[in-house]
Amino acid sequence: MSPELHINLANLRSNVRFYKEMIKSNVEISAVVKSNAYGLGITKLVPALEKYGIKIFFTATLAEAIKVRKCSPHSEIFTLNGFDFQNSDLYLEFDITPVVNNLLEAKKFTEIFDQSHKTALQINTGMNRLGFNEKTLVDHFDIINSLPLTLILSHLACADDVPNKENKMQRDLFSRLCKNLPNTRKSLSASHGTLLGSEYHFDMVRPGIGLYGGLKTNGLKQVIQIKVPVLQDFVIDKDMQVGYNFTYKAKKTMKVATLAMGYADGLPRILSNRGKLFSGNKSCPILGRVSMDLVTVDISSLPDTPNHLTVFSPEYHVDNFAKDCRTISHEVLVNLGERIKRIYSE
Amino acid sequence: MSPELHINLANLRSNVRFYKEMIKSNVEISAVVKSNAYGLGITKLVPALEKYGIKIFFTATLAEAIKVRKCSPHSEIFTLNGFDFQNSDLYLEFDITPVVNNLLEAKKFTEIFDQSHKTALQINTGMNRLGFNEKTLVDHFDIINSLPLTLILSHLACADDVPNKENKMQRDLFSRLCKNLPNTRKSLSASHGTLLGSEYHFDMVRPGIGLYGGLKTNGLKQVIQIKVPVLQDFVIDKDMQVGYNFTYKAKKTMKVATLAMGYADGLPRILSNRGKLFSGNKSCPILGRVSMDLVTVDISSLPDTPNHLTVFSPEYHVDNFAKDCRTISHEVLVNLGERIKRIYSE
Repeated sequence: MSPELHINLANLRSNVRFYKEMIKSNVEISAVVKSNAYGLGITKLVPALEKYGIKIFFTATLAEAIKVRKCSPHSEIFTLNGFDFQNSDLYLEFDITPVVNNLLEAKKFTEIFDQSHKTALQINTGMNRLGFNEKTLVDHFDIINSLPLTLILSHLACADDVPNKENKMQRDLFSRLCKNLPNTRKSLSASHGTLLGSEYHFDMVRPGIGLYGGLKTNGLKQVIQIKVPVLQDFVIDKDMQVGYNFTYKAKKTMKVATLAMGYADGLPRILSNRGKLFSGNKSCPILGRVSMDLVTVDISSLPDTPNHLTVFSPEYHVDNFAKDCRTISHEVLVNLGERIKRIYSE
Repeated sequence: MSPELHINLANLRSNVRFYKEMIKSNVEISAVVKSNAYGLGITKLVPALEKYGIKIFFTATLAEAIKVRKCSPHSEIFTLNGFDFQNSDLYLEFDITPVVNNLLEAKKFTEIFDQSHKTALQINTGMNRLGFNEKTLVDHFDIINSLPLTLILSHLACADDVPNKENKMQRDLFSRLCKNLPNTRKSLSASHGTLLGSEYHFDMVRPGIGLYGGLKTNGLKQVIQIKVPVLQDFVIDKDMQVGYNFTYKAKKTMKVATLAMGYADGLPRILSNRGKLFSGNKSCPILGRVSMDLVTVDISSLPDTPNHLTVFSPEYHVDNFAKDCRTISHEVLVNLGERIKRIYSE
């Protein structure tokens, strides 16, 4: 008995529509599907997203891009983590467009490919993570300008922080650096950046987490729920202890249940004695340490022992869960383990 | 370009030998291989462990047990998370022995199977997670006694805390409760418990994390190393910032590198501005936030930009890494992502 990850494709469709309605008709919408579509499964999500009108996909790695191609014969596919030039034949074979992030990759691209295979260019507008900075762009403009570019992109560092003036600074720098490459599509914004307004949309937006229900924003719907089977229930008396290192001691007689989800499945150990599971809207606090494959919770408030509890509730969003894990919803999603069965509903 | 997880099977063999030398000749050694052999891969680890003399395996779930059976036709395989009686036919088909954890499972077992299919029994000696407590054992001894038992087991809560008196209390309770079921093998200890001494070994020990190099103990060897490819290097000036939300600002000119590993791969986001990667023994501090697929580090102290850095060093063990992640090595191992290529060496 293992947890089930229920993925609501109707709500995924609604979130695609939310982003489509936010952008002008001449702006393209793509989807970021790296890390196995944020843990939800490339092979099911990519065909669904295509059905909802998305024709452009971004992955991190070449291996992921090939996985996308195998379930999407006609889409445009980009690899954000650069041009893996030692495997250049695979870009041709699977029609993958590399994002060239630095001078070495640009040189290798021009050495290996003719003008018929397109490439994208990433510009570093301040994150100092990947991409060309201004000086390299200027110093090597001849090489850049000779690339068969189909897209120029950059990435906002603080898009989740709406009033942060860095957003405008990155946008203005992006606009200025793109001026010398006028006839190519431009893209700056992912899920949060798109919400900043049309001056951040350029020619293409690239939502990811927002599509998958990881943003708690008016108009975006939850996409996932996790059902966790109850394996055993029992009554513990006052002063009895629970779990590794006996970090929980009962203050009174209580009814507890042990469930088939642990940190190997993506219920992080940091939730020990802090997290909760749900029966509808009723919360069941986690008692003691989360184990690798198991968690024990207090079900004293429930009239009966249910067959399963859930990880989220109508009021307890993926984003709330992430905060309790002291992280962001992205890390929650990509940590959902392989043992969890993915179940898709329309 | 993705990280590589290098798994040293010679050191795995050495760790098996370590545990074998610790136990008497009449004590059996098994291996816990739940959660895909702690992230290292059941299909490679189980045949290797068999070659090193292990003939008994423990998984959490039935699905994992079937995966073990498919690469190990003759071993004894137990499912720790109980008897999944709705799939009882699979226990027969794949010759899997369920660990019966409660009365419902015991009753279902006797309803479904005759005496030819064996079962194991888990006793709750204080963790209050799974298993029969004393009262249920006594009240329903007729049912328990009618089970075709091949093993009785329990689990220590505080075995990593050697002087903790709870260890002896759990052991003594286990001995006492087993007295009424004398002709069955008994097992109490996993990796840490086995180190407590022969009075904790009973008839079988069940190491897991200790085999995989997750315990920092004299005599146990490191089993894994992760090589992370460098994607890009560049120089940043004083006051330039790095990564999401610009949480790092350079105090001076420095050389940085961005590498192809992020929290989706098991480099937890909690290491943002706190963790480090290595070039040999030289540490390269993580700058700014760890991203989903990328991490940026300070390589100013290195003479050249290397092709890759490593996650561990000869002095920086999996256990040290886990402490920096504010968790234990078990969670580190099971969080290593699917994108990481597993490479096995003898």
